[in-house]
Amino acid sequence: MSAIQPLNLIVDIASGRLEPATTVVTRRLSDMRGMYADAAAEAALIERDDSVVYKVFQYDVPEETGQLFVCTTVLEPGRVGDEYFMTKGHYHRVRDRAEVYYGLRGEGQVVLMTEDGRCSSVELRPGAVAYVPPCYAHRTVNTGTGELVFLAVYPGDAGHDYESIERSGFSARVLEYNGSPTLVEQEPSGGSR
Amino acid sequence: MSAIQPLNLIVDIASGRLEPATTVVTRRLSDMRGMYADAAAEAALIERDDSVVYKVFQYDVPEETGQLFVCTTVLEPGRVGDEYFMTKGHYHRVRDRAEVYYGLRGEGQVVLMTEDGRCSSVELRPGAVAYVPPCYAHRTVNTGTGELVFLAVYPGDAGHDYESIERSGFSARVLEYNGSPTLVEQEPSGGSR
Repeated sequence: MSAIQPLNLIVDIASGRLEPATTVVTRRLSDMRGMYADAAAEAALIERDDSVVYKVFQYDVPEETGQLFVCTTVLEPGRVGDEYFMTKGHYHRVRDRAEVYYGLRGEGQVVLMTEDGRCSSVELRPGAVAYVPPCYAHRTVNTGTGELVFLAVYPGDAGHDYESIERSGFSARVLEYNGSPTLVEQEPSGGSR
Repeated sequence: MSAIQPLNLIVDIASGRLEPATTVVTRRLSDMRGMYADAAAEAALIERDDSVVYKVFQYDVPEETGQLFVCTTVLEPGRVGDEYFMTKGHYHRVRDRAEVYYGLRGEGQVVLMTEDGRCSSVELRPGAVAYVPPCYAHRTVNTGTGELVFLAVYPGDAGHDYESIERSGFSARVLEYNGSPTLVEQEPSGGSR
């Protein structure tokens, strides 16, 4: 087990940044091409300003069993057609690894999917923990009007499998329906079409 | 891997309770007999009202690799002599398991100790993550005037070793010294003398 000293990581809830962060990931709409249901709306938004959808601020630890990764995510408000801005979503590469989210600002949902394609969702808002059980794909959706900021903790040996979602998508999407966020079963669509 | 469905756990920051909690632990001063440096002050406080030092609200998951336990702790303000109210502290039974704390209310410190007895501390306050590396004993101390409330996440297969601390204590204590919390190297004292 590699040695890391005890340390503080400070969450600036106003900006959503984690300090220190050793990895910062920025995802624009063009980084998620093909993931939203409305391809024409997606193309038009990429053409217009290709806005940032989310940023992740992570403190890296050794990718080892027993370690815990900590990161914050700032997911912007917005929609592609009727579909709320969301993260790419992933399984863990080691499937049976859980994840814990804690909402800090804004409101949204975590969409979860079993490997046989059954989707459900739990909420994310200040004070709410979203427990992602082992073996579930998970994606976060901002259903509010401001940024969605949350803390995540996941096992050091979990790894990420983005490819399965890029290929096959989720079987449900969170759409604005009659003015409210609604989890709607849909033909999945991947990101590499 | 046992099946748990996705779910929300709601933290009531005002009370510090986690809902739902499947295990609630209450520790009074008499449950920590012998852990504070000032034995006479400890005995007098136990005699007076044996007050609650802390409560833990935990959502239980299977004790398996890849799972994550989530709990909140409410640590009361107070002192035993010059020593601030604290948790019992433990190693993980499986030593090389990390833990992550996130401060929600109040202010305090996490005291950490290597197996060869070197102590350090990090802070705990709203917005601060305290990262407990693998193999460190950890204990939380309330250095403020109100309750200290924090969220903790730790691996499902970590387990707890309270006995080592009950037997040998920590090699440093957080004392009020010239009006400020100070980590002071001390002869450790256990809880089963």
